[in-house]
Amino acid sequence: MPDIVTAAMIVIGDEILSGRTKDKNIGHLADMMTAIGIDLKEVRVVPDEEDEIAAAVNALRARYTYVFTTGGIGPTHDDITADSVSKAFGVPCEYDAKALTLLAASYEKRGIEFNDARKRMARMPRGAEHIDNPVSVAPGFRIGNVHVMAGVPSIFQAMLDNVMPTLKTGTKLLSATVQCPFGEGRIGEPLAAIQKAHPDTIIGSYPKYADGSFWTELVVRARSAEALEAARAEVEAMVAGLVAEG
Amino acid sequence: MPDIVTAAMIVIGDEILSGRTKDKNIGHLADMMTAIGIDLKEVRVVPDEEDEIAAAVNALRARYTYVFTTGGIGPTHDDITADSVSKAFGVPCEYDAKALTLLAASYEKRGIEFNDARKRMARMPRGAEHIDNPVSVAPGFRIGNVHVMAGVPSIFQAMLDNVMPTLKTGTKLLSATVQCPFGEGRIGEPLAAIQKAHPDTIIGSYPKYADGSFWTELVVRARSAEALEAARAEVEAMVAGLVAEG
Repeated sequence: MPDIVTAAMIVIGDEILSGRTKDKNIGHLADMMTAIGIDLKEVRVVPDEEDEIAAAVNALRARYTYVFTTGGIGPTHDDITADSVSKAFGVPCEYDAKALTLLAASYEKRGIEFNDARKRMARMPRGAEHIDNPVSVAPGFRIGNVHVMAGVPSIFQAMLDNVMPTLKTGTKLLSATVQCPFGEGRIGEPLAAIQKAHPDTIIGSYPKYADGSFWTELVVRARSAEALEAARAEVEAMVAGLVAEG
Repeated sequence: MPDIVTAAMIVIGDEILSGRTKDKNIGHLADMMTAIGIDLKEVRVVPDEEDEIAAAVNALRARYTYVFTTGGIGPTHDDITADSVSKAFGVPCEYDAKALTLLAASYEKRGIEFNDARKRMARMPRGAEHIDNPVSVAPGFRIGNVHVMAGVPSIFQAMLDNVMPTLKTGTKLLSATVQCPFGEGRIGEPLAAIQKAHPDTIIGSYPKYADGSFWTELVVRARSAEALEAARAEVEAMVAGLVAEG
């Protein structure tokens, strides 16, 4: 039996919902999870509001193996992720001694005052463990199955690189793509028949459109190489048959 | 009193969650909503699973003025948005006579067989109204406050253009940006004080990072020009003061 490991993501930030910033983290997390056999099952983008963030954390941590959040862990008043996650877990949000030491040393080295705003970045739910930040020192954290990371893409990616080796991975969903020079309307019926005959695969059909014409990418996914190949061969034969028909 | 109109979005598709396709529709909807004074409050990305889609539709249509969905309305077996939305509303999903006529005429004109797969695109919840598709004919639909549109960005954008004039708009959230050459740690405390003194504004701080240094974009948002200007002037003065300090 394949081993199924699931994940959800929470993107925290008014700036994404207002359109001001275009998210780049969803696609990156999706790629990374797929690469290691974890199924990303849901993403929520929520505003900078404590109750909204806490509700999303609680809804998703109960359903999925892992939850990953991005955004809201900086030193300003609108950075409320640590408070919100603490609230979700029902634990106090407090200054973490190790994080204070780490940040104090870093600011001292750079000759920068370790003021109250900067100290905010050491706050995390009681019992949380650090996620190292090789880019700008201030750590993310993990509590339970929830991983809290930065929203700035380069920092998020660096933190995620540190998280990845700690995750339990599942049986990887293998995939094969068949290019189809026709729109979906031409292939809908035979493709549905192939999907029905191969219930151990997931066959997706992704329409592409440009300059007035449609084409389609057909993607077969399966957790075993044999199942993948059997369905892929049928999809390829179907497309070849249609091409021969003209 | 400002008039508040809210919206949520549901992005439907395994291809986004697997990372295969990078979403381009969230940012576009966010920009369009902001432009007409509708607050996008939440986005969910959900897989091609009927129960998941129906649950998201029901959770969000009850909370927000409008819900917008993208994806899953094509002719293939994995296009299950019409069924899922029908299930959410508790109405049958059936062939729409007007959509059948429209599609039949379009395919006849192009000399293409109007087969069963293509007919699937005429299915919608009983009582739904069309959203015109000027790009590729097959309509989206609206039922209650839920607007169902295509996932292909060019088609989604064209459908949304048709939906926009039908929406009730709110008092637009005005915004002003102040560039700050310092990282957030330097401005966290004075910025929090300005936010506290101006509760009728939303002040966001967006850290930017590249080549080893941080800078910050400070964005003031408010529904009245006077409130906006008062807070913006204080933020600008704060940044100027820090620059003078060096």
